Amino acid sequence: MKALVYHGPGQKSLDDHATPAIIDAGDALVKILHTTICGTDLHILKGDVATCAPGRILGHEGVGVIEAVGPGVTAFHPGDHVLISCITSCGRCDYCRRGMYSHCATGGWLLGNAIDGTQAEYVRIPHADTSLYPVPAGADEEALVMLSDILPTGFECGVLNGKVAPGGSVVIVGAGPIGLACLLTAQFYSPARIILIDLDDNRLEVARRFGATDVINSAMGDSIVAVMALTEGRGADTVVEAVGVPATFELCQDLVAPGGVIANIGVHGVKADIHLERLWSQNIAITTRLVDTVSTPMLLKTVTAKKVDPKQLITHRFSLTDALAAYDTFARAGETHALKVLITP
Amino acid sequence: MKALVYHGPGQKSLDDHATPAIIDAGDALVKILHTTICGTDLHILKGDVATCAPGRILGHEGVGVIEAVGPGVTAFHPGDHVLISCITSCGRCDYCRRGMYSHCATGGWLLGNAIDGTQAEYVRIPHADTSLYPVPAGADEEALVMLSDILPTGFECGVLNGKVAPGGSVVIVGAGPIGLACLLTAQFYSPARIILIDLDDNRLEVARRFGATDVINSAMGDSIVAVMALTEGRGADTVVEAVGVPATFELCQDLVAPGGVIANIGVHGVKADIHLERLWSQNIAITTRLVDTVSTPMLLKTVTAKKVDPKQLITHRFSLTDALAAYDTFARAGETHALKVLITP
Amino acid sequence: MKALVYHGPGQKSLDDHATPAIIDAGDALVKILHTTICGTDLHILKGDVATCAPGRILGHEGVGVIEAVGPGVTAFHPGDHVLISCITSCGRCDYCRRGMYSHCATGGWLLGNAIDGTQAEYVRIPHADTSLYPVPAGADEEALVMLSDILPTGFECGVLNGKVAPGGSVVIVGAGPIGLACLLTAQFYSPARIILIDLDDNRLEVARRFGATDVINSAMGDSIVAVMALTEGRGADTVVEAVGVPATFELCQDLVAPGGVIANIGVHGVKADIHLERLWSQNIAITTRLVDTVSTPMLLKTVTAKKVDPKQLITHRFSLTDALAAYDTFARAGETHALKVLITP
Amino acid sequence: MKALVYHGPGQKSLDDHATPAIIDAGDALVKILHTTICGTDLHILKGDVATCAPGRILGHEGVGVIEAVGPGVTAFHPGDHVLISCITSCGRCDYCRRGMYSHCATGGWLLGNAIDGTQAEYVRIPHADTSLYPVPAGADEEALVMLSDILPTGFECGVLNGKVAPGGSVVIVGAGPIGLACLLTAQFYSPARIILIDLDDNRLEVARRFGATDVINSAMGDSIVAVMALTEGRGADTVVEAVGVPATFELCQDLVAPGGVIANIGVHGVKADIHLERLWSQNIAITTRLVDTVSTPMLLKTVTAKKVDPKQLITHRFSLTDALAAYDTFARAGETHALKVLITP
Repeated sequence: MKALVYHGPGQKSLDDHATPAIIDAGDALVKILHTTICGTDLHILKGDVATCAPGRILGHEGVGVIEAVGPGVTAFHPGDHVLISCITSCGRCDYCRRGMYSHCATGGWLLGNAIDGTQAEYVRIPHADTSLYPVPAGADEEALVMLSDILPTGFECGVLNGKVAPGGSVVIVGAGPIGLACLLTAQFYSPARIILIDLDDNRLEVARRFGATDVINSAMGDSIVAVMALTEGRGADTVVEAVGVPATFELCQDLVAPGGVIANIGVHGVKADIHLERLWSQNIAITTRLVDTVSTPMLLKTVTAKKVDPKQLITHRFSLTDALAAYDTFARAGETHALKVLITP
Repeated sequence: MKALVYHGPGQKSLDDHATPAIIDAGDALVKILHTTICGTDLHILKGDVATCAPGRILGHEGVGVIEAVGPGVTAFHPGDHVLISCITSCGRCDYCRRGMYSHCATGGWLLGNAIDGTQAEYVRIPHADTSLYPVPAGADEEALVMLSDILPTGFECGVLNGKVAPGGSVVIVGAGPIGLACLLTAQFYSPARIILIDLDDNRLEVARRFGATDVINSAMGDSIVAVMALTEGRGADTVVEAVGVPATFELCQDLVAPGGVIANIGVHGVKADIHLERLWSQNIAITTRLVDTVSTPMLLKTVTAKKVDPKQLITHRFSLTDALAAYDTFARAGETHALKVLITP
Repeated sequence: MKALVYHGPGQKSLDDHATPAIIDAGDALVKILHTTICGTDLHILKGDVATCAPGRILGHEGVGVIEAVGPGVTAFHPGDHVLISCITSCGRCDYCRRGMYSHCATGGWLLGNAIDGTQAEYVRIPHADTSLYPVPAGADEEALVMLSDILPTGFECGVLNGKVAPGGSVVIVGAGPIGLACLLTAQFYSPARIILIDLDDNRLEVARRFGATDVINSAMGDSIVAVMALTEGRGADTVVEAVGVPATFELCQDLVAPGGVIANIGVHGVKADIHLERLWSQNIAITTRLVDTVSTPMLLKTVTAKKVDPKQLITHRFSLTDALAAYDTFARAGETHALKVLITP
Repeated sequence: MKALVYHGPGQKSLDDHATPAIIDAGDALVKILHTTICGTDLHILKGDVATCAPGRILGHEGVGVIEAVGPGVTAFHPGDHVLISCITSCGRCDYCRRGMYSHCATGGWLLGNAIDGTQAEYVRIPHADTSLYPVPAGADEEALVMLSDILPTGFECGVLNGKVAPGGSVVIVGAGPIGLACLLTAQFYSPARIILIDLDDNRLEVARRFGATDVINSAMGDSIVAVMALTEGRGADTVVEAVGVPATFELCQDLVAPGGVIANIGVHGVKADIHLERLWSQNIAITTRLVDTVSTPMLLKTVTAKKVDPKQLITHRFSLTDALAAYDTFARAGETHALKVLITP
């Protein structure tokens, strides 16, 4: 089969690769209908993700059709259309029982990282019963690809951890795909104000279209002054870090109101400063989270009920044979205005 | 009246001072029965607290008797015995309505800081109706002095923020009075393990007596290895920072389990490092809090019901005329083994 | 001044009445700009509310201007425009500190019940600092009258107690003003489905307009069958009782899903049956609540941010001199299609 | 093998019965080490449980050793000592993902009800990976039998649903085994007062020994007056119904404080009255729950840490061959003073 394979830092190719097979009793073999590229895939290609060895098929998002299942699988059968979660969960370890699928003893972020992933014609999914979700009747399967990772990440790490609430104020630092997914799902809770901060006017324009009440280009002036002006001088109840560098994490500390939350989504490569000399008395919380995808059933219901339209995140479409072009378009988002690129085998 | 007065960094004296009077309609004048010294008073004397001007009477803890009340006070009358909260709250601003008394628009930490405090024969208490608590019938008034600040601080900032739970694991870094107050109140929730870490064997011995299941002298070896050995290699569900320096805050980041909380109590003077390059995916929370004293009614009930004995924190007793000796004993805690020193006018 | 006065069961009149005066230090005298009639006022007129004595000025809702304040009032000054809460709260008793203003030791539902109310030119408001809210700049004061009682009641007793959540299912039994207020505020949380049940097609039509996804006229067939068909046979996560009679409360027990909540808003005059022989194992909760109006600051923000438009509940307008006609219109809602009638002195 | 078999209302016998075998991939075959009898078994014998057909081996509690596992089982191996949960959960259906194992689509209360149970030498456990728990090293396996059902039931349905909190007041109506299990686990949260109400002085004496602060024999006078005297006239924050008849459920409604919770544990056979004409404004919650056993991991930790000693619930011991005598002793608890009777094959 065709597959997009990582061959070490800076190196990837579209290869002919052996089709995966059922190994464990709980496995499912899924034929990919649609997949996409994540910012994390670019991290891997930079060589930043030590757990991902050369030779690995990339990708941890997708919708597909069950081709075969192991003898321990009871919830799915060949022919079932399924949403693939980016997080594999056994459903039985201590962490899974607590809803922390991200830290599953035999799961977590495996796909396209510790095992072969979804940017291929077929993928093997371990713990299939608890790592796949049935596609609801009549659902738009392209839209559902956004539920593999980006929508639950924005929602769980940003909106839920950030305790977004009716009438509250939210700042999202970073208007990339993940910040925008956070913006879309923050609106479930009717905050009074959602302010997006970014350096890219195009992304801020998209943010406005997606429901931001205010946008701030941080290149154009002082973001702190601007946020304080919009929040009666207090700062925001929820501040979402959706970039992943020390400077933006520090900015968040200047934007959060007493009693507020800084919800980190960004994947950080280095340590940052925390200004405890000021924050110790500010009654704030800072949260971190690798997405658990525990909210996937809830998100499926909101999509079905048209409370959110994740499809608007898709800006480009490619066939799997053009996967390298897809990567190029996604990597040059500043020029191409790409958010999520859909890849269809 | 006699009063302990701050005269600038490193300078304090026991002065004859004018007795305070009612100023605002909501004020009460309270005759002090017992007061005590807090670590924060030592911070002031080092010149670290800019809001505290020379000439200020120190002290924000105490039990007393109402001497007089302003026309707006309805809950208290002369002769009532009262517990003084270290936090003044108006009960009507946005923050007070949310239970964040620490950030009260016209209150917060005023006593012995922005206005004259309790280390005197009399003190004026603004917003008396919402900043004083009636002493329950038959209560030990010496014990109640511990409810002005140290017990709610350990409980709210450490135990409640730290989500201590039955069967859980708790590490408290710092076995000073505030760490010990946290230890005492953590036991309300029956954690399986409470580990105290300190450099002082005497304090660790006290911690054992107060209910610690394990103690670690961090001078004697690797605290991280020791905690991991006690927690099946995971780290602790709750890690309480009760020191206030970068090194201990960093230690906490090595001790917290995935899904756990670092609850900061320490008063920090400088920024610290936060290892987001590792923590971003660990699903943790870091909380900060200036005590709100919202738990005071609950704590009064637990003391009355003998679920906790805060009196064991009192190691020394002085008369107000010996207040300078009291400060000396408290400041040299390493030698004197002082925890809390009771001062009685 | 003119005032609408209760003179015993079935008897009311528009009287000339002495203007109220400041009595306690915490009182404010408020000149009424707009008031309205509540279903509870009709209960009083039936003689169902024992605490309301003949001679009482009715009304517990309104917006007005501060005319005078007692010496203990610090938050308001003459000329300030204020929203009057239907619940008077002292802000200092045990219940108020817990956010249960409805059970305030010296407050609760006093206005137009234990003391004179708002259907008059002036009203005295005790505990003014904690029972009034400043009207935000630029707010529509007619709309804000809906925040005295009906919107917080629908929100706190129905939506918050009912734990309405994104993607969830909600049934509201009763499409009167209070059921509709619940419908409006339930949308803060983006449930997938909000089903309204009533006997009156006009009200169901209004419900559709206000955002109901489905409506059921219970006279036209089996509501239980209809709800089960809409909820995959499970019943609803949230069932709100907004009528107040045994039959509707029993219906709610047939509509709630395992793990769901029945949130009672209805004012009941008699006991009802609870089918514990079936419900004991269904993991449900039944909640009751007299509104606390703790959500008023949050609701003010949602109205200001245009997340909800409470003004659409106002169907008729009267001058205070026509208050008897206003009562007549409101009492004959089946014919007049009245929801809330605005009365302006 | 020997097994205690239900043969229709009033009829049971100790039979020779075929040993069960693995049927589904997720099954385990467990050799019973210890089991016990539950009040629900007596309900079945009265013919009250329609889902339990004649021919059924009774029992849903026990500790045992894995004899064999199906091909889908990954967490357990022959020879492992395991705690059997009374609730079978698949870990993958909507209810299991929400922690409502009691309503598992293919599980729930199956053992000794819809399928053969544990009062035998061997039992087949479906969904073994998510329905069994490893016995911790060094644990007292007799004590752990109390964790199959009675301890999680008292804890989840009574203590967690009842929101027991430090300094709070708790009334438990019914001092049978389940009420006592609630009493034991309520102490995890350090309430100020735990009042037990029963008609049996022996059970009340046991309650005192187990930590009740007050006991009331409801045959000796007015329980309501007594509880009000102990709670400053307010009633209790938490009222646990641990009997299951209309009279005790009505009593609970008279004992609950405004803002409190009635947590129902009792298995009710008929409907009851709910006094909404009084309760509608009391801001209370009534909860019901079939135990989910989601707290089993937490409870195992508290037992290991000696925060609770469930073994004190065991009053009698029998061999499986004397199972009929065990039933007789348990059924005549009023005379025999039996709480839980341990049966060992």
